[in-house]
Amino acid sequence: NGMEMDQLGPQNFLYGCELKAGKDVTFNPEDDDFEHQLSLRMVCVDSSTKDELHVVEVEGHNSEGQEVKAILATLNPSSLPSVCLGGFEISPPAVFRLKSGSGPVHISGQHLIMADADQSFDEDDDDEE
Amino acid sequence: NGMEMDQLGPQNFLYGCELKAGKDVTFNPEDDDFEHQLSLRMVCVDSSTKDELHVVEVEGHNSEGQEVKAILATLNPSSLPSVCLGGFEISPPAVFRLKSGSGPVHISGQHLIMADADQSFDEDDDDEE
Amino acid sequence: NGMEMDQLGPQNFLYGCELKAGKDVTFNPEDDDFEHQLSLRMVCVDSSTKDELHVVEVEGHNSEGQEVKAILATLNPSSLPSVCLGGFEISPPAVFRLKSGSGPVHISGQHLIMADADQSFDEDDDDEE
Amino acid sequence: NGMEMDQLGPQNFLYGCELKAGKDVTFNPEDDDFEHQLSLRMVCVDSSTKDELHVVEVEGHNSEGQEVKAILATLNPSSLPSVCLGGFEISPPAVFRLKSGSGPVHISGQHLIMADADQSFDEDDDDEE
Amino acid sequence: NGMEMDQLGPQNFLYGCELKAGKDVTFNPEDDDFEHQLSLRMVCVDSSTKDELHVVEVEGHNSEGQEVKAILATLNPSSLPSVCLGGFEISPPAVFRLKSGSGPVHISGQHLIMADADQSFDEDDDDEE
Repeated sequence: NGMEMDQLGPQNFLYGCELKAGKDVTFNPEDDDFEHQLSLRMVCVDSSTKDELHVVEVEGHNSEGQEVKAILATLNPSSLPSVCLGGFEISPPAVFRLKSGSGPVHISGQHLIMADADQSFDEDDDDEE
Repeated sequence: NGMEMDQLGPQNFLYGCELKAGKDVTFNPEDDDFEHQLSLRMVCVDSSTKDELHVVEVEGHNSEGQEVKAILATLNPSSLPSVCLGGFEISPPAVFRLKSGSGPVHISGQHLIMADADQSFDEDDDDEE
Repeated sequence: NGMEMDQLGPQNFLYGCELKAGKDVTFNPEDDDFEHQLSLRMVCVDSSTKDELHVVEVEGHNSEGQEVKAILATLNPSSLPSVCLGGFEISPPAVFRLKSGSGPVHISGQHLIMADADQSFDEDDDDEE
Repeated sequence: NGMEMDQLGPQNFLYGCELKAGKDVTFNPEDDDFEHQLSLRMVCVDSSTKDELHVVEVEGHNSEGQEVKAILATLNPSSLPSVCLGGFEISPPAVFRLKSGSGPVHISGQHLIMADADQSFDEDDDDEE
Repeated sequence: NGMEMDQLGPQNFLYGCELKAGKDVTFNPEDDDFEHQLSLRMVCVDSSTKDELHVVEVEGHNSEGQEVKAILATLNPSSLPSVCLGGFEISPPAVFRLKSGSGPVHISGQHLIMADADQSFDEDDDDEE
């Protein structure tokens, strides 16, 4: 049914997570025959978030396969309580964490699932990859 | 006429709702042969909204079919009276609510209606799903 | 020449209007063989706009053909003098107005004109619709 | 080679200009066989920009071929030093200017060049248009 | 395998860099058979960034092949600690630098890699370009 999803286009699910100091969140869906992607939309503080600068970091992979870190957003309850990411697409595996600030800070977006072009014609590769 | 809509691409309607403390809003169009989606654009306070942090939450479904909550926006009349969501796509059923703040807070966007790829060739399934 | 426009994709024109208290603006292009759409980009205060919260409302139609109102933006010269709408697509007929504030407030965006899929093969329907 | 560009999709170049009071900037690429478009991304103040409201105006053409003005952004060094336009597409000829404020204010974006669908099959029109 | 990538669409990797006064960052992937592009998403201050206006500049090429500079973002820890660029597409070679401010300031986005339409049918041109 990889083919079937391909015909339907990507399927769209809701994604949300909460970051606190020392509490990383990993996005790494289990290995199936589909391609997973996050389209990140918003980063927001909560009503209980302390009024200090919060720096949200994502750890993923660059084009050479090396781990890289990038800053997703820097926000602050009193001056910038939410910021739009505009559909920042993140491929798994990725880790989200607070580089500064104690949180909580919320990330939201869309979890997109598509047929994996490499695997859709291969029915038996789910046992060892 | 599912086929007809498919040829025309998604049809676009205006969507708007108002949230107040204790007044959730549900997006769950009645079951027809079409696929419905919200493309959320803006979250805005009103001129009567009290100057406190308002946290807007959406409840939907993750990729495993479980209910999940995500924060759409955190805003505040004095520092951030509106925030762009940039086309955050939400599939029904979904519930919008204020997690904090008394409101009113307004959500606006586009209600997109497309031919449902699963059903467009099946003329008789509208009686029991 | 509906076919010709279809091949060229949508044509793009500049759209801008100014709202003041009591001065609504209607977007309702005259009925031709084309499909019209606004892709709204920015809402901005002017240098003469009084420092109070301005709430911009749009009136259009929901998926059941009923008139609905939605809030496009809430802004304020001192804290948020402009806000991006990110391509909020509005189908005519639509009315823009200030729900609060005396203005002026400016809306800008793109007026897109496409061949109307329903009418492009029908040369004689411009007399009664 | 209009055909060649068509196959490659739009080509993408960097665009940037600086506005000061009384110093308009015109976007009007010389007439060649290509279609030119600006996809505007950001409007930003400079570190030397005086702390007053700056209103950035664009002059272009509406769907009836008439000159129209629209407000692109209103910004202010102390409260909103930059604003995202999210890909506001402007067709030439267009003029950018400061309607208020002394500047400098910077506009940046992408200059997109595509094969012109009207002319790509006509090899001999580059000598007099 | 240029053809293979073409069938898969662009591949998406995480991009992040840090700017400080006097520390430029160059984006210029080594010459391979692929087309590289940055889709810039966010510019953010850090928790250690001094409270002054930071102006982020990019240097690239205009449509005539000349070097041009454009301002990507102007931000400030206390009033605007992060700003969304909304997918500002930059073609290499490009240089990012702080025109004002001492930093650090972070840029993040997506590094997209596609089959190069010019080269995908030519296996032997990697020796002299």
